[in-house]
Amino acid sequence: MAQSVLRQSTRSVNALRSFLRPVLPIIARPFGTSTFKMSEFKQADHKLLVIPGPIEFSDPVLLANATPGTAHTSPAFIPVFGESLKLLRKVLLSTEESGSQPILIAGSGTLGWDAVGVNLVERGDEAVVLNTGYFEIYGAKVNQVKAEVGNVPTDEAIITALSSKPKIITITHVDTSTGVLSPAAHIASLVKKHSPETLIVLDAVCSVASEEIKFDEWGLDVVISATQKGLGVPPGLSVVLASKRAVEISENRKTPQQGYYISWKKWIPIMKNYEASKPSYFATPPVQLIYALNTSLKSIVSKPISERVEAHKAASKYIKDELSAIGLDFVPKSRDIAANGMTAVRFPKGLQAPDVLPKLAERDIVVAAGLHKAIVTEYFRIGHMGVTAVDRERGDLEKVIKGVKEVLGKN
Amino acid sequence: MAQSVLRQSTRSVNALRSFLRPVLPIIARPFGTSTFKMSEFKQADHKLLVIPGPIEFSDPVLLANATPGTAHTSPAFIPVFGESLKLLRKVLLSTEESGSQPILIAGSGTLGWDAVGVNLVERGDEAVVLNTGYFEIYGAKVNQVKAEVGNVPTDEAIITALSSKPKIITITHVDTSTGVLSPAAHIASLVKKHSPETLIVLDAVCSVASEEIKFDEWGLDVVISATQKGLGVPPGLSVVLASKRAVEISENRKTPQQGYYISWKKWIPIMKNYEASKPSYFATPPVQLIYALNTSLKSIVSKPISERVEAHKAASKYIKDELSAIGLDFVPKSRDIAANGMTAVRFPKGLQAPDVLPKLAERDIVVAAGLHKAIVTEYFRIGHMGVTAVDRERGDLEKVIKGVKEVLGKN
Repeated sequence: MAQSVLRQSTRSVNALRSFLRPVLPIIARPFGTSTFKMSEFKQADHKLLVIPGPIEFSDPVLLANATPGTAHTSPAFIPVFGESLKLLRKVLLSTEESGSQPILIAGSGTLGWDAVGVNLVERGDEAVVLNTGYFEIYGAKVNQVKAEVGNVPTDEAIITALSSKPKIITITHVDTSTGVLSPAAHIASLVKKHSPETLIVLDAVCSVASEEIKFDEWGLDVVISATQKGLGVPPGLSVVLASKRAVEISENRKTPQQGYYISWKKWIPIMKNYEASKPSYFATPPVQLIYALNTSLKSIVSKPISERVEAHKAASKYIKDELSAIGLDFVPKSRDIAANGMTAVRFPKGLQAPDVLPKLAERDIVVAAGLHKAIVTEYFRIGHMGVTAVDRERGDLEKVIKGVKEVLGKN
Repeated sequence: MAQSVLRQSTRSVNALRSFLRPVLPIIARPFGTSTFKMSEFKQADHKLLVIPGPIEFSDPVLLANATPGTAHTSPAFIPVFGESLKLLRKVLLSTEESGSQPILIAGSGTLGWDAVGVNLVERGDEAVVLNTGYFEIYGAKVNQVKAEVGNVPTDEAIITALSSKPKIITITHVDTSTGVLSPAAHIASLVKKHSPETLIVLDAVCSVASEEIKFDEWGLDVVISATQKGLGVPPGLSVVLASKRAVEISENRKTPQQGYYISWKKWIPIMKNYEASKPSYFATPPVQLIYALNTSLKSIVSKPISERVEAHKAASKYIKDELSAIGLDFVPKSRDIAANGMTAVRFPKGLQAPDVLPKLAERDIVVAAGLHKAIVTEYFRIGHMGVTAVDRERGDLEKVIKGVKEVLGKN
């Protein structure tokens, strides 16, 4: 549907809203008796998925993804969307009072980079990119601060890069290709000290709900993520949290945004309406995925986030200790810069992916091969996020370790 | 994950592919015995959703959307994605030989407009937009050809607009806000006659798999759609089919694309790999939605597409005849420009949405209010796409008519 119709529809929905308010409770009447009880649903048997995302999903999350056809403007759905926005803030330890803005739209984690590029970057802006590069496309001058494989950039290199007071700095929180965990809190503190105006963007695709993220306390400006990793929801949602400062900067651009679907100007009013339980329309949200996300977020916040982070640390320690015990080594240079939601582990000398991965698959265990070009054949990756890390009664971790030991002849 | 990592990963996956080929059949071994039989799954009871999308989904489609965690590079998943691309071409009556390129990515139908804007339009290009406008944002000079509410643009107006040989013309196939069906085949023939170089873009969000579309025969260049309407799949997928000519034009742009996630340069190699059943990676596809789409597409192509179109015509005729019989009138000026997948019906004099919609909702029937600003309070909209139109044993259409008659006191 094209722009003018969309504009009309937003206005019309708003008009209709006040119109229908008195009768909404009737329309919102819950579903009748369900012919299919949630407790009866059990997902199909399948190989254990322990890659760094997508991960294993719980039965309630998958059942929510099978929610019957529901209008995106339904009074039953709107509060579910609104609550999901609030819960996302909670997971990232941000508050409504901070003015931070969650934005959930159909897309992948990668779409979050377009969100940053389109909404925050203008031609000629300077961007510092830790490890990896992206912003060239939006006309930014990019300064890449690289680290050797398995390591993080030095403080010195970061401070030097900040000396020109760049518009933006991006941090890859967990590098999915190497399992390296950046010290995001520390890097943010360096930015606050040496270039406080610089916007801090955290690529948290592989860290939300598995690693510690304190959005408000660290003074982050944008967290970019997706659903299929720590959040434990099928892929298909771009997950963003933007600070008040970032939103204001996007609103006060000098040049127009080079994008439509990804425009925060379009989406933020919609998100605000959803959060206030008001119907609103720009583009159709992925209703079933939002139900699935809501189910997962409610489970995540049923305990303090710190406990969830600790559970991931314990899972990671178990996996890494067990692998160390059979003589295996890791891609990250040290444990303190190793992710807690995944492990990048080197093969024993002489072995490569085709010697190991198929044998694990025969045991119904799916791990991931190497990804970083420089060392692609030398290692493999195990994911341990979400239910695999938190619901230890599943025995996922023990199954992986048993499988690896068998395949490597170490049992 | 940022650009250089993505580049690495594509290369690495390709390297790994040839590496793993001998053992893929083992990894691809199907799931073990399912603890949950497909035949046992029945979606929750819910109100009948008869709006112009999202629509009612079948049980097998919803169960597919609850597929357990599956890697996007899994040898089990890749052929499912590849087959879905082929089936989409089939639904749109296009052939592989034509060189047309299906593109399925996480997003909404609206994202398709960014795809057209980013990949096909360059600053200064002229675009003719029938009914509605969008392309300003990508620097195009836009010539809007408007029609009065409920009508389609005249041939004369279209031919005049084509006289400057614009780069692109966009046609809204079914206007969701009014239920008007554009004579797309006829308009395409006017373009072929008066400005054959002009790219023809069909906004088919509300027409794919419910109205006749002959991609190759009509000489279309881009069809933009989504899953939650005629395709009968939960929302969250941007559905695009691009002609060989459109792909070539996107490849030979003079100026760089102002977008990353939406770039066809990034996605087309991935789609080609999926269609050839080879693993490939740019951004994580919405795995569960692709399973759901595959399930629906297989059901759709199990009969000739012409039969499906006829079923929608029959459903539309039934609804419109029944509503006419109780004295109701429609927004489209005549039946021959009225959509077959939806009906925009005027309220009897003196009634508005709050008098009718809540009473239908009490009867577990969800229709949609008006949307077009000029007449928003004067009409409502009934969707009759997908299983509601095709699987007449469900009795959806009869339920809607019975409900409307009761509420209007016409029974």
